[in-house]
Amino acid sequence: MTFARNAWYVAATPDEFADKPLGRQICGERIVFYRGPGDQVAALEDWCPHRGAPLSLGRVVEGKLVCGYHGLEMGCDGKTVAMPGQRVRGFPPIRSYPVLERHGFVWVWPGDAAQASADKLPALPWADNPQWAYGGGLYHIGCDYRLMVDNLMDLTHETYVHATSIGQKEIDETPCQTRTEGDEVVTSRFMNGIGAPPFWQMALRMNGLPTDQPVDRWQICHFTPPSHVMIEVGVALAGRGGHAAPPQAKASAWVVDFITPETEHSIWYFWGMARHFKPHDPSLTTQIRDGQGRIFAEDREMLELQQRNLLSHPERKVLSLNIDAGGVMARRIIERIVAAERAAAPAAA
Amino acid sequence: MTFARNAWYVAATPDEFADKPLGRQICGERIVFYRGPGDQVAALEDWCPHRGAPLSLGRVVEGKLVCGYHGLEMGCDGKTVAMPGQRVRGFPPIRSYPVLERHGFVWVWPGDAAQASADKLPALPWADNPQWAYGGGLYHIGCDYRLMVDNLMDLTHETYVHATSIGQKEIDETPCQTRTEGDEVVTSRFMNGIGAPPFWQMALRMNGLPTDQPVDRWQICHFTPPSHVMIEVGVALAGRGGHAAPPQAKASAWVVDFITPETEHSIWYFWGMARHFKPHDPSLTTQIRDGQGRIFAEDREMLELQQRNLLSHPERKVLSLNIDAGGVMARRIIERIVAAERAAAPAAA
Amino acid sequence: MTFARNAWYVAATPDEFADKPLGRQICGERIVFYRGPGDQVAALEDWCPHRGAPLSLGRVVEGKLVCGYHGLEMGCDGKTVAMPGQRVRGFPPIRSYPVLERHGFVWVWPGDAAQASADKLPALPWADNPQWAYGGGLYHIGCDYRLMVDNLMDLTHETYVHATSIGQKEIDETPCQTRTEGDEVVTSRFMNGIGAPPFWQMALRMNGLPTDQPVDRWQICHFTPPSHVMIEVGVALAGRGGHAAPPQAKASAWVVDFITPETEHSIWYFWGMARHFKPHDPSLTTQIRDGQGRIFAEDREMLELQQRNLLSHPERKVLSLNIDAGGVMARRIIERIVAAERAAAPAAA
Repeated sequence: MTFARNAWYVAATPDEFADKPLGRQICGERIVFYRGPGDQVAALEDWCPHRGAPLSLGRVVEGKLVCGYHGLEMGCDGKTVAMPGQRVRGFPPIRSYPVLERHGFVWVWPGDAAQASADKLPALPWADNPQWAYGGGLYHIGCDYRLMVDNLMDLTHETYVHATSIGQKEIDETPCQTRTEGDEVVTSRFMNGIGAPPFWQMALRMNGLPTDQPVDRWQICHFTPPSHVMIEVGVALAGRGGHAAPPQAKASAWVVDFITPETEHSIWYFWGMARHFKPHDPSLTTQIRDGQGRIFAEDREMLELQQRNLLSHPERKVLSLNIDAGGVMARRIIERIVAAERAAAPAAA
Repeated sequence: MTFARNAWYVAATPDEFADKPLGRQICGERIVFYRGPGDQVAALEDWCPHRGAPLSLGRVVEGKLVCGYHGLEMGCDGKTVAMPGQRVRGFPPIRSYPVLERHGFVWVWPGDAAQASADKLPALPWADNPQWAYGGGLYHIGCDYRLMVDNLMDLTHETYVHATSIGQKEIDETPCQTRTEGDEVVTSRFMNGIGAPPFWQMALRMNGLPTDQPVDRWQICHFTPPSHVMIEVGVALAGRGGHAAPPQAKASAWVVDFITPETEHSIWYFWGMARHFKPHDPSLTTQIRDGQGRIFAEDREMLELQQRNLLSHPERKVLSLNIDAGGVMARRIIERIVAAERAAAPAAA
Repeated sequence: MTFARNAWYVAATPDEFADKPLGRQICGERIVFYRGPGDQVAALEDWCPHRGAPLSLGRVVEGKLVCGYHGLEMGCDGKTVAMPGQRVRGFPPIRSYPVLERHGFVWVWPGDAAQASADKLPALPWADNPQWAYGGGLYHIGCDYRLMVDNLMDLTHETYVHATSIGQKEIDETPCQTRTEGDEVVTSRFMNGIGAPPFWQMALRMNGLPTDQPVDRWQICHFTPPSHVMIEVGVALAGRGGHAAPPQAKASAWVVDFITPETEHSIWYFWGMARHFKPHDPSLTTQIRDGQGRIFAEDREMLELQQRNLLSHPERKVLSLNIDAGGVMARRIIERIVAAERAAAPAAA
């Protein structure tokens, strides 16, 4: 395994299983998500103990997950509750995963349940704050999750991959600083007195600010384990304090990236943006999400073909330049955590 | 191999090779079916002895199968008859398979030809009887053929998989009896004084019977090796004798399931229904076939994902409950037959 | 490896990378083609030395190939020229392939660059001659390149595969002669006083000749390593000298087949026709190319299913008949060349 297991991963958004259970592979485990008793989210192995059918093809009846093949009823603890015409006491339990619904996401803990606790959820500075609005989406991408961490911890790629939206020459020309704070890695870049690229012109306009004046732009990428990257981004009218400028002089947001391994070489990529302006304008949320969706789709082909190249040449080393420092430090933290998990549970598969 | 080879399997329906030869993999063997001399069905290895081209891309000329690449002409015994500009005496023969056309199906014997004989064909009670009409179709499904045998020998799944057509709660609530008679397994369930589900309401209506009265319903599943499942099904107006009721008080049929392994994990599934009412109404045949096709398509996703689950966890055991007795007994018979074949021909591939 | 590496292969036509770089796998190597300094064609490994991204997703700026991920700039010699904010002296070079643009094709040499020279390009008798016109296309086919060589060195298949266009019974009935001249294999067949098949009737008509009179037809296939097959084809009014008839009494052409291995079991197949009549009629070029494209597409299914058959039975031998002599002799030459390459570079992968 190349990923940590004792951690909260974003598994889904609640709308994905509003009508019927959702089967999804997370960190190599096939899991079914549904609403159990009291509408609480439940996560079970996607395996009926009767004959191995996928429970995700079933339906929920009074908080129990009823297998769609022969009607076996599962409790959210992984124990069989009932089955037509059968005594179920001796049925082998299936695995139940710690799961939480928080901040608009469903979080699952694929590792040791005893170590799971809500206080290990990442803090989302904008969440549950009416001054902020959030919109986002989900992409499936065929690459190692660490390639996406690399991608997000080095935003120079915006100049090339996203040339027509958020890229601009000054990103390349401005060095970034990278530091670690415990298990967090922070890469920041500040570009002052530059022109705003198209995406940020839109944001300025939506915020009632002029689009033809110089701005100070910032990008502050925060990696936290297991594989979350949250990025403070924004522009302020030049000379008004940049990142610290008052709200009425800037357009600022968090770019949100929850990267969840599906397998060793594929991910569920939950992306989005939390903005700190016009939070009560849902059409603006839609507009930004659509724009961001187009931009982030541009990364997909690059990452999948990079992955194909790397798999063709496992013997080759890639370079670790200054711009790669964020990804490199993040990988070091990941490796340390994975090694510690392996040491603690040497017999695990 | 997990399947018997010395047995008749349904390979095709005659319409599938009316215009040109049909290439199809049966029990792991690539076979070409066509009409040879006197319009008799022939089955050969789908391999031209010249350069290994698939003979199924060829055409039939005067009862000979002419390779579509360089014109080699095959006889239905697997010997090369002629080739333009060549002497063909020394050409290696290809395998010829015992094949029969009977009851609207083409049957092939993939194993030892010396053991094949027409009297080993299964008896089809309705066939060649003008009182009965048959309609059916073919599905390709990515699962071990035994998962489909399990499926059909335990009809409690109808309650869940086919809830809107033939499923009803009483199936679940009524125990089934299972017995073996030699190599045959019979699972039967009788439900008396119940309401007819939608499919059977239609059948009653087509048969001129009321649809709003209680009925006695029956399901009698017959497994015979290698992997045929034929099911007596029907409803009679309640109290008129059920399965034994006179024709004018019931709607009855045979559900026909010929399950032919393509590979270890995929099947050709020939399904159909022979009915004992209004046999001369082709539009009713079409209507029933379309309905049955929709119902049986509901099983496909379940079986393919069940197969995926089982392959992911080869170490796991599944349960064998009372409702599974039919499938379990069928598997025992299959295992005995396969073991006997292996013992008789230990050197075979 | 089953293919020679120290040879010129057709990799692309120039229009394929007119707008942006072209990534293509040739002889198992992923290569990017683009126009470098002075619009010269360049061919590099499709691998950015920074992080392994595919350079083919980049763009060309002032003759340098700029990686589409982080802006690294490659020279056509495989050395990194520049990267924003980086010193690149220590960057590992990537492989640069000898490449030439000649006769409307881009030729690449996947093996030892020291052995590449323009005088090893095949001679194309019609190229750069205004009396001739060329049109062609590209197919991707899932087969060993040698199966396509076999196909083209034995045109008896035209009778069967291309029955409605260029096939005719007389091809089968007329023996062919095969000989080797050094590394060249020549298979020829002359059919005199026959009717012209549909394709050649069209060619006669386009050439102002009658289509209802007997013709002398010829097919002279030339194999040259590594895997080029060029075929002189044509028809002349009967008794006017056949292949040697004066231009006004015949319709003649070269069928051009450059077969480039992509992998061991797939090819890029550059096919076309150079004709010696009405060379200045582009609509005729289009018409002939469309017709040839339809004919050559007929081979694809046959070759892919033949390949599947052969892979299923690696233990089987195929026959080598008189009509196969061209392919057999070509394979012998190929084997000798591959063995010599292997002996010269025993340590190569």
